[in-house]
Amino acid sequence: MPATPGVPAVRLLPIAQPLYSATMSSTAFDFGDGWFDPDEFARLRRRMPITYVNAVPVRLGADGAVQQIGLLLRSDSRGNLTRELVSGRVRYHESLREALIRHAENDLGPMALPQVPPSLQPFTVAEYFPTPGTGRLHDPRQHAIALCYVLPVRGECSPRQDALSLDWLTPTEALMPDIVSEMSLGQVHLLKQALAHLGQLP
Amino acid sequence: MPATPGVPAVRLLPIAQPLYSATMSSTAFDFGDGWFDPDEFARLRRRMPITYVNAVPVRLGADGAVQQIGLLLRSDSRGNLTRELVSGRVRYHESLREALIRHAENDLGPMALPQVPPSLQPFTVAEYFPTPGTGRLHDPRQHAIALCYVLPVRGECSPRQDALSLDWLTPTEALMPDIVSEMSLGQVHLLKQALAHLGQLP
Amino acid sequence: MPATPGVPAVRLLPIAQPLYSATMSSTAFDFGDGWFDPDEFARLRRRMPITYVNAVPVRLGADGAVQQIGLLLRSDSRGNLTRELVSGRVRYHESLREALIRHAENDLGPMALPQVPPSLQPFTVAEYFPTPGTGRLHDPRQHAIALCYVLPVRGECSPRQDALSLDWLTPTEALMPDIVSEMSLGQVHLLKQALAHLGQLP
Amino acid sequence: MPATPGVPAVRLLPIAQPLYSATMSSTAFDFGDGWFDPDEFARLRRRMPITYVNAVPVRLGADGAVQQIGLLLRSDSRGNLTRELVSGRVRYHESLREALIRHAENDLGPMALPQVPPSLQPFTVAEYFPTPGTGRLHDPRQHAIALCYVLPVRGECSPRQDALSLDWLTPTEALMPDIVSEMSLGQVHLLKQALAHLGQLP
Repeated sequence: MPATPGVPAVRLLPIAQPLYSATMSSTAFDFGDGWFDPDEFARLRRRMPITYVNAVPVRLGADGAVQQIGLLLRSDSRGNLTRELVSGRVRYHESLREALIRHAENDLGPMALPQVPPSLQPFTVAEYFPTPGTGRLHDPRQHAIALCYVLPVRGECSPRQDALSLDWLTPTEALMPDIVSEMSLGQVHLLKQALAHLGQLP
Repeated sequence: MPATPGVPAVRLLPIAQPLYSATMSSTAFDFGDGWFDPDEFARLRRRMPITYVNAVPVRLGADGAVQQIGLLLRSDSRGNLTRELVSGRVRYHESLREALIRHAENDLGPMALPQVPPSLQPFTVAEYFPTPGTGRLHDPRQHAIALCYVLPVRGECSPRQDALSLDWLTPTEALMPDIVSEMSLGQVHLLKQALAHLGQLP
Repeated sequence: MPATPGVPAVRLLPIAQPLYSATMSSTAFDFGDGWFDPDEFARLRRRMPITYVNAVPVRLGADGAVQQIGLLLRSDSRGNLTRELVSGRVRYHESLREALIRHAENDLGPMALPQVPPSLQPFTVAEYFPTPGTGRLHDPRQHAIALCYVLPVRGECSPRQDALSLDWLTPTEALMPDIVSEMSLGQVHLLKQALAHLGQLP
Repeated sequence: MPATPGVPAVRLLPIAQPLYSATMSSTAFDFGDGWFDPDEFARLRRRMPITYVNAVPVRLGADGAVQQIGLLLRSDSRGNLTRELVSGRVRYHESLREALIRHAENDLGPMALPQVPPSLQPFTVAEYFPTPGTGRLHDPRQHAIALCYVLPVRGECSPRQDALSLDWLTPTEALMPDIVSEMSLGQVHLLKQALAHLGQLP
């Protein structure tokens, strides 16, 4: 980072360099999703719980307080718009940190500069059941157990092919009825839990 | 509970009644371990991470501070004595609360009166890798991702057939070299994390 | 506890014995509120933050999930009804565990059998500012910094002289508009944070 | 930040700009330490608990895992070298975020770029008692109740006049006997709790 006149030179740590994803994917012991064919995996999802990570992308102010929440806007298979958190399963022999970075990059793009938290204590564990009404979170495909983290993001997010946009909303905006009505899988409950944990529930 | 002379009558809540396991197992939507034959499950454990719960049984003093830690003593397949925490996998469509109660009953007996914590935020998430040296926790059978809880126990624990005993140790005793050397899977690291979380790391 | 026909004898740990408060107050190194005269303390409250503990009394089901929240109903100096959480300051040389037990006994009576949590990590820290609008929590008397805990209660609660009643409400009931409108100091925000932490925010 | 050839332009958020401390001190409602004369404050410290923040400065790797711990080296009034965490009291009407930033700047210098965590849930609460032997943490001046946070630091730290240096140590190095023997106030216990919370206790 070249020095700017009037601003003292600051050596930023590697955390600010968008280089780790390449490093990560080459060092990760990664058997890939292809190891299961889709039919086999669809059946497995009906027989055992699948471990996931869920992440709530946030923009922080200078004092560390959350200013905005990032929600992905997608179009589902029936053409309905849905809002989602960053989410994905943990692969065999993949660490939780690797899974968080991989899914953040998948969903937010390579320049998002996500900050995986120093402690892996999740703010909650989300249980998605395939049977409607079993709990607040519902995933018709599977029983998923998701470790839920707050993910500060400092760079530019670029929506990927399967997402229409990533929208940054204040806590109040994120809980507006029109936004809430678009959230899928019951994730509005998870968002409220995150906001409460962050001291930002409106 | 009949009144005892000199002691004011206290209506204890259901939490003190050792009745819930029967209730739980009848209401749980339980496909059972038998749904996988052992060979198939052994192969699956090599292909995807398996979700576990780990629990550190504790005896609390009147002020809530931990006084003792419960460690299971088992004899492994080669006749070696090993010390373990309460541990087991989460079944398909089983809630984390149900899994904690089921494994606590399996390992501590039906009269242990375990107190599943009111919040499901774990104190940490343990990652057991099958490859030695990948992390601090190692399980040669599988990649397990375990949600870790402190489990206060108020009743009598009875060792089951596959456990030789359940020993209650103070934090200092639990970290004595002879006890530590018997702990398997690297769980001493988990025990230290639990004790630190509890403010009781010697 | 005498054996009941058909129920196996269970030796309960001291946690179930309503004896500790006497023990506590005799062992606590307690300089007492009287050490400050009211005028001096009122002035101090305007000069430095005062450390508090806040506790959300809860009734747990057999699986550890919260079923009910306890709210104190008081009549304030102007005769208005107000709902409050258990709350009080930490005295000089008093431990947080002692302060939690002392205030639980003050507010819930001697037979409440509160369970101080094994870990002193609070679910949040509440900041009450004396200036209206500075934050969500407001205490006109002082700047209070309150460590917030969930307090499972297993015995009988008896309202004390300065409280009209202790009402047990489900999470949904506790957030009904007529209840919320009676909550003072902005504590509804704290209650929501507790419910979110407990996975019970409606 | 000017674009560097070959590196995609990234708009960093304000978090990376060392501007907030000036902003903070002008907006904080700050009565200052001078509001108490030293004698009066010394007496108050003997009459009521004083609210503190403690922070463990850390350097994070690209995956968020802690790589190094920062310990301040000071010379105490008797000329002994002591190691300390970032620490300081919360002022009247000062928020916890403001207090963390103020003390980080005091102890680490204005270019440290500390990242105050998005959630104010501390990893533990430290209780320092003035009477030796009451607990693990001991402060002969006072009964202090300190909210403890992990504080990622991304910039350059400059030791201030009353600190000889800030040394960055790996978790293993930080717990070497010669370092531990220099830690004051029993803070080695706090450091171990932080490392356990971070999954980095050796």
